[in-house]
Amino acid sequence: MKLLETIQYPADLRRLAVEQLPQVCQELRDYIIHELANHPGHLASSLGVVELTVALHYVFDTPQDRIVWDVGHQAYGHKILTGRRERFHTNRQLGGLKPFPSPEESEYDTCTCGHASNSISIALGMAVATRQRGENRHVVAVIGDGSMTGGLAFEGLNNAASTPNDMLIILNDNDMSIDHSVGGMGEYLHKLHTSSTYNHLRDKAAQTLYHWHVLNDDRKGRVLRFNNAVKSLLTHQRNMFEGLNIRYFGPEDGHDVVELVKTLQRIKNMKGPKMLHIHTIKGKGFKPAEMDATIWHAPGKFDPNTGERIKPATDQPLPPRFQDVFGETILEMAKEDKRIVGVTPAMPTGCSLCIMQREMPDRTFDVGIAEGHAVTFSAGMAKEGMVPFCNIYSSFSQRAYDNIIHDVAISHLHVVLCLDRAGLVGEDGPTHHGAFDLAFLRPIPGLTIASPMDEKELRRLMYTAAQAQQGPFVIRYPRGRGVLTDWRCPLETVPIGHGRKLKDGDGNTAILTIGPVGNMAAEAIQESGLDVAHYDMRFLKPLDEEILNEVGRKFSRIITIEDGSIEGGLGSAVLEWMADHGYKPEVIRLGLPDKFVEHGTPQELYKIVGMDKDSIMSLL
Amino acid sequence: MKLLETIQYPADLRRLAVEQLPQVCQELRDYIIHELANHPGHLASSLGVVELTVALHYVFDTPQDRIVWDVGHQAYGHKILTGRRERFHTNRQLGGLKPFPSPEESEYDTCTCGHASNSISIALGMAVATRQRGENRHVVAVIGDGSMTGGLAFEGLNNAASTPNDMLIILNDNDMSIDHSVGGMGEYLHKLHTSSTYNHLRDKAAQTLYHWHVLNDDRKGRVLRFNNAVKSLLTHQRNMFEGLNIRYFGPEDGHDVVELVKTLQRIKNMKGPKMLHIHTIKGKGFKPAEMDATIWHAPGKFDPNTGERIKPATDQPLPPRFQDVFGETILEMAKEDKRIVGVTPAMPTGCSLCIMQREMPDRTFDVGIAEGHAVTFSAGMAKEGMVPFCNIYSSFSQRAYDNIIHDVAISHLHVVLCLDRAGLVGEDGPTHHGAFDLAFLRPIPGLTIASPMDEKELRRLMYTAAQAQQGPFVIRYPRGRGVLTDWRCPLETVPIGHGRKLKDGDGNTAILTIGPVGNMAAEAIQESGLDVAHYDMRFLKPLDEEILNEVGRKFSRIITIEDGSIEGGLGSAVLEWMADHGYKPEVIRLGLPDKFVEHGTPQELYKIVGMDKDSIMSLL
Repeated sequence: MKLLETIQYPADLRRLAVEQLPQVCQELRDYIIHELANHPGHLASSLGVVELTVALHYVFDTPQDRIVWDVGHQAYGHKILTGRRERFHTNRQLGGLKPFPSPEESEYDTCTCGHASNSISIALGMAVATRQRGENRHVVAVIGDGSMTGGLAFEGLNNAASTPNDMLIILNDNDMSIDHSVGGMGEYLHKLHTSSTYNHLRDKAAQTLYHWHVLNDDRKGRVLRFNNAVKSLLTHQRNMFEGLNIRYFGPEDGHDVVELVKTLQRIKNMKGPKMLHIHTIKGKGFKPAEMDATIWHAPGKFDPNTGERIKPATDQPLPPRFQDVFGETILEMAKEDKRIVGVTPAMPTGCSLCIMQREMPDRTFDVGIAEGHAVTFSAGMAKEGMVPFCNIYSSFSQRAYDNIIHDVAISHLHVVLCLDRAGLVGEDGPTHHGAFDLAFLRPIPGLTIASPMDEKELRRLMYTAAQAQQGPFVIRYPRGRGVLTDWRCPLETVPIGHGRKLKDGDGNTAILTIGPVGNMAAEAIQESGLDVAHYDMRFLKPLDEEILNEVGRKFSRIITIEDGSIEGGLGSAVLEWMADHGYKPEVIRLGLPDKFVEHGTPQELYKIVGMDKDSIMSLL
Repeated sequence: MKLLETIQYPADLRRLAVEQLPQVCQELRDYIIHELANHPGHLASSLGVVELTVALHYVFDTPQDRIVWDVGHQAYGHKILTGRRERFHTNRQLGGLKPFPSPEESEYDTCTCGHASNSISIALGMAVATRQRGENRHVVAVIGDGSMTGGLAFEGLNNAASTPNDMLIILNDNDMSIDHSVGGMGEYLHKLHTSSTYNHLRDKAAQTLYHWHVLNDDRKGRVLRFNNAVKSLLTHQRNMFEGLNIRYFGPEDGHDVVELVKTLQRIKNMKGPKMLHIHTIKGKGFKPAEMDATIWHAPGKFDPNTGERIKPATDQPLPPRFQDVFGETILEMAKEDKRIVGVTPAMPTGCSLCIMQREMPDRTFDVGIAEGHAVTFSAGMAKEGMVPFCNIYSSFSQRAYDNIIHDVAISHLHVVLCLDRAGLVGEDGPTHHGAFDLAFLRPIPGLTIASPMDEKELRRLMYTAAQAQQGPFVIRYPRGRGVLTDWRCPLETVPIGHGRKLKDGDGNTAILTIGPVGNMAAEAIQESGLDVAHYDMRFLKPLDEEILNEVGRKFSRIITIEDGSIEGGLGSAVLEWMADHGYKPEVIRLGLPDKFVEHGTPQELYKIVGMDKDSIMSLL
């Protein structure tokens, strides 16, 4: 670790000779592997961009020049090289380094980057503002081929092509997002790779001219302009990006740091928007991760020498993860019901739709990082009589809001929207918490919105949703494990818009919950020993008016608890209903506060926001 | 009108000889022009696709085959040919034909199509479902070049390329959305047009082979496969769509109905996804509209002979449209404040940013139909010290929900979001009503959300937003005219989070309003002669707690009025605040109901939803 220890900031890196960079890369890679072995995080993406990270900070004058990372998974090397090496062991922990780059944390972090595909748009804005202000700085966006399938990236490219700017886009192509990339764009990039005739000829011609001293590094840009001319002569081929007026360079080996530096130095001062296409291997340098980058996307603790993943020892069976209950149940239902199909925007493993995908590849659709399309595509299938289960992480479903309203709800189509990772997700922090779904979905007319308290309820709600004739049906459930080890109940319907009275009370206080936070409330009530009533509302919409009437009549005090925004969700719905029906109980609303909740373990965070067992008990 | 009168449904059309179709087109075009002269609607788009509409219904077996129109502006010919000619004069009127195609209205209408760029995704869903169900039908998506700039269209293309389907995409290229198309895609399509060498050679070769009887119409597909081979030989060029594995045909003249029919017949049964690129002229056949398709997008009443637009005669000056107050004010502010830039997703005329664009083309950005990018691009500019005013229609801002949360609010960036067309827009109906913005924006932490009661307030709020140091700032205002003719007040700030007491009351009832509905409430109070208090809240967030304390203390009854969803907006916010602060007034909430409001004039619709003057008076 001789070199890495001398680098606090990129300025230190830039004092090294280019020949020393391979060693820096090796040390940086080892550092990441050894840190992540003990402090779990996103491994494979960051290993894939070690050379790119070093090359960028070497060639560009950061933080004066701007690097915009598309999704922060890949930015661990960037953090370590920008003043955060010594705190890196606190990454993703409560009060420690943030899970993704954040301008609040470092001036080297240019933007929020938790959701994919936004880098080109942000970088374009920065590049345009730089010109407006008459400043002189470089702006570089780094985007993966997976993120390139997102519509936002395309909107950015389309606009970059016609708005004066000098932005550089690095297309980091590893045929992966979290799972394998899908769609025409991935295949297209693959074809660019394999069009090797042109690349070989181009390289050879350029080398020859270098050798003859016709070209040299001082004549920046000339080599590449020459290359483009050769390309044009050889193939008459305009690729997609050139068709959009974005100059295209590559593909190049993204693991040859010395060559990367040379290329970046040559193209950095060229005018106009340009793209450098590099090829990298996700998980590079750590064999197990290279073999299965999906598992090693965020592997948990592992042995850095053997590559063995370390699972926490348990002496009793754990409840299943909600995502696996979803995956097993949709497969079970699809076997009986030919109308059922599964849709995921690039998260077959993350949402466990892969369980169905393995047995029914023709009835599962991974549509790429394209949440909007996932919903609208599902609408089209529903229109023709299928029953699509479209599974999206809650926070990513924000990307599909108009699709839910315009393409599904207005037409009252029978699409089942399963929102995984609802509520606080923990270590991934504010970009990934599913905080807003209850509030933003509730105003949509005709939507059924439900959240299961446990695994059996998830199965029942999924089955109910498939049988429903009520148009769109939303089921939202959290990240992580449920509460039941014996969860494989029979598939049966529940009445839509009906909750469950779990416990009667003495007429003073009633607790109304939705979703798995109900278990916390139940524990609090039990531990308090008080005679507090508890209702699992199960449905946010339609509300169970029988329960609300009973509660309004019998109780003077209502506590609502939901793992979603305090503004506009269950608590607001209960207040509205009570006001509309002439009841005036005291209503105490527990939910996520009106600020972005930081990262930490879910337990830590629920305590901070006042929704843990002790906080609930203190209100009884 | 001899032929058109014989056509009730496409089956009637299909009984005609292909040689009769030009006459059908002529009659259909005349019919549209004469109907729209008296019953205003979207003229230019529908004129542009007359031949395409006739050709599609002639070649495809609708409604068994599916046509998916991207944005319904263009679908008037489709309506007239599908059983709705005799009711066409009721188009866009309360209780009459719906403004856009709707499956509720006709089995020939396959989906909701008010927002651009969704057709490929929906059609792909339909095509995939057709295969799943073992059915045999054609699915055709019709998308304009403007809509092709939307990210959703790209997500659909990307997925179509790798999901087995036989969909046909018609790319209707007229270099227009509502204003001129912008961005790389538009330029790219233009280049395809002008690559005439290949096209000429191809056509000539095909004609020769026809002439020699080597090829004929019975050998469907062969001509075009041959053409592709010629193309490949001649140019080695793979265009963007072929790069994405979508077979590309064209560009062809979209106004030659006989040729269009032939081409469609040749390619309709080809396997795999395919695109036919046609060139049309928006407004075709009506000279004034051909000359200025933006003005003639939805021209109001006009004289079909002279092309003179008929403006309603008034004897007194009208208040300005809110959009023009925005346009004039941003220009005025931008002259003084170099940080200010304007951003619009393809609506420079619709939102009147064109007023600034004319004087400051370098500081206004039309980014194409790309609401998500518009916001994220603005975030990038804000990061570098600019103050972007990003203007989006309220209902289209649903497309940018995640961008507002993830790219702006989490980073607390100083982006000013101006949402035009908030509340009920009238004749454009449920896809265009700005019903949900207050409810979906309110849960976002750190957002300032305001709505002006009149034009002066809009100016003050815009000026306040530019000066604010408070991160993102939303100003939402309605379609149409304000209430003041003398509106050019000095630019001055208002205190953020502070409303206005417009009228004190006797302590019984207080009305709390936000936005221009406040004027309706003021009229109702005045007409009632009752001593009812009235507060213009001005800000939904942060709430004015001084006002709320005063109201909670003094009044037993509160009526909240907002032109947004009844669930989650101002009324809910007031209920929450009162509950949190121990007040228990009776709260009556007026707002848009929990269903999609249909089309009609705003006056008609506000009466239906119980928010007109009489309805308010009946509550006092």
